[in-house]
Amino acid sequence: MRGRIRGRRPDDAPVIGLDLGGTKIAAALVAPDGTVLDRHFLPTPATEGAEVVLDALGRAARAVRTREAAAIGVAAAGVVDPATGTVTSATDTIRGWAGTGLAAGLATRTGLPVACDNDVRAAAATELTGRRGREASVMIYAAVGTGVGGAVAVNGRMLHGAAGVAGHLGHLPSPEAEGLPCTCGATGHLEAIAAGPGITAHYTRMSGTPAERLETVAARAARGEPHAVAAVVLGAEATGRALGGLANALGADRVVVGGGVPRIGALYLDALHAAFTGELMPPLKGLRPVPPRGGPDTGVLGAAALTSTLPLHHPDRTTGAPR
Amino acid sequence: MRGRIRGRRPDDAPVIGLDLGGTKIAAALVAPDGTVLDRHFLPTPATEGAEVVLDALGRAARAVRTREAAAIGVAAAGVVDPATGTVTSATDTIRGWAGTGLAAGLATRTGLPVACDNDVRAAAATELTGRRGREASVMIYAAVGTGVGGAVAVNGRMLHGAAGVAGHLGHLPSPEAEGLPCTCGATGHLEAIAAGPGITAHYTRMSGTPAERLETVAARAARGEPHAVAAVVLGAEATGRALGGLANALGADRVVVGGGVPRIGALYLDALHAAFTGELMPPLKGLRPVPPRGGPDTGVLGAAALTSTLPLHHPDRTTGAPR
Repeated sequence: MRGRIRGRRPDDAPVIGLDLGGTKIAAALVAPDGTVLDRHFLPTPATEGAEVVLDALGRAARAVRTREAAAIGVAAAGVVDPATGTVTSATDTIRGWAGTGLAAGLATRTGLPVACDNDVRAAAATELTGRRGREASVMIYAAVGTGVGGAVAVNGRMLHGAAGVAGHLGHLPSPEAEGLPCTCGATGHLEAIAAGPGITAHYTRMSGTPAERLETVAARAARGEPHAVAAVVLGAEATGRALGGLANALGADRVVVGGGVPRIGALYLDALHAAFTGELMPPLKGLRPVPPRGGPDTGVLGAAALTSTLPLHHPDRTTGAPR
Repeated sequence: MRGRIRGRRPDDAPVIGLDLGGTKIAAALVAPDGTVLDRHFLPTPATEGAEVVLDALGRAARAVRTREAAAIGVAAAGVVDPATGTVTSATDTIRGWAGTGLAAGLATRTGLPVACDNDVRAAAATELTGRRGREASVMIYAAVGTGVGGAVAVNGRMLHGAAGVAGHLGHLPSPEAEGLPCTCGATGHLEAIAAGPGITAHYTRMSGTPAERLETVAARAARGEPHAVAAVVLGAEATGRALGGLANALGADRVVVGGGVPRIGALYLDALHAAFTGELMPPLKGLRPVPPRGGPDTGVLGAAALTSTLPLHHPDRTTGAPR
């Protein structure tokens, strides 16, 4: 069942932001001025199927005082189509998540109108507030972590694209990833060499020494182990080159690089910056990637902000649950 | 001197479209319904400097009855910033062209308001008319010729980006171009292997047999010469992969590939299509590149259309030439 879409915007009431991750659901009641009025966290029942996850989202919303809120914004992993309110495609992090009627399911459970988008695009939306955000004509936001995701905004509005796919920066061809299989089924994509698992796998290939986690490779790189340094630098260079080329193609004037991988630190960031600037056409030469502005509340604040920019899917009053 | 910008749009009068190429200036008087009422052609005085080229553009405009026209749209090679009306950067095809005050110079010479943009973006604008063009949320338009240029449109509006750079698709990193110098000063960009000169140079490198022009390589490929076939296929694959990756990053629902190189024919197009579809993420799997719709008038019609979508730079009446 798809919720109906109506035009009312809850501009003067608190809204709920729900940030759905693979391990945790973060909920917040957010005032119109961005103040967080209440918070709640739940583990994600990732292995129990989509209906159980929707139930947990509903519970998290109720825990932050659903009765006071005018709407819910949900930021979720995967390819999410805000127009239909459904999860277009997803990895297996949450079992049975692809195809879920996220907005309709949550609207029915809470009695509130629901807007949804993918988690990276919601986080990136927090970059569009303030003077710098509004002035950027083209913003590229990369999130380099377990995968390489991102978002693209044009004239202050987030791009969604066909099937909500816009922002999948990890699926650009990358010279550094040549021949490596990508999670999407293609070969040679940026994500295969530049995401955390890509860096870790490349280290293992080069060194012959297994490493399970990126943190292990980062620690060895910090001690100067050559193969670890090389794997970190190659991931950074691949990301920098892809983002530099994309900046050329789009005429970007703001490039943000977030996610867990850049937290490796200076070794990573120096290589990223050098590779990025090396790609730029002369008119863009002054452009530099910057870190995200958001703090720990970025996820829920971005989710809450979706209620004022995206279509709201309203509960079907004939079948909707009472609030 | 920069012309002033005013808001009046010449919706009900003919306008002049000027298409400035490296060898030829094409001028047309275009009725509001898109009918070409008059045409004129002049050679481009490419070696004589920017002022002489502006004089020639003014002459071409007068030849198609400047007195009847309400405005002039100019499509020119290089990076053109429609907001300032200047050529931000350019190759040496036209001597001294970078930095030229194109809109102001032509407004002064003709007494008419002038809108300008780069030639590829103007041609691509003719794709945005009609149902299919309006329905595309993200259109990528590639022009593969002496260089690899292009345009990106979002929700029916052409993207300009910082310094008017948007659409420079040839400056994405390309695995197939690894190590090759690019015209922009960087290394390993798509243009270095996929533009006509890139294909020709790669053929010469592989075969040891010099070829001056793409037509020579295309003819040898048509006869089945293996190195010529390989160079054509590699250029097509590089373009297909870059466009497929860009379609993933932007969620494109329309991809147009034009320019002289695709006219090589089936050998080129089959390799381009296969490489393109091989890159696509599952939600985009049905997407296919299509040829441009425009006929021989695309250049001047696109130029004329700029007058209704871009800022018009008006002549300074205190110094402007009489019409």
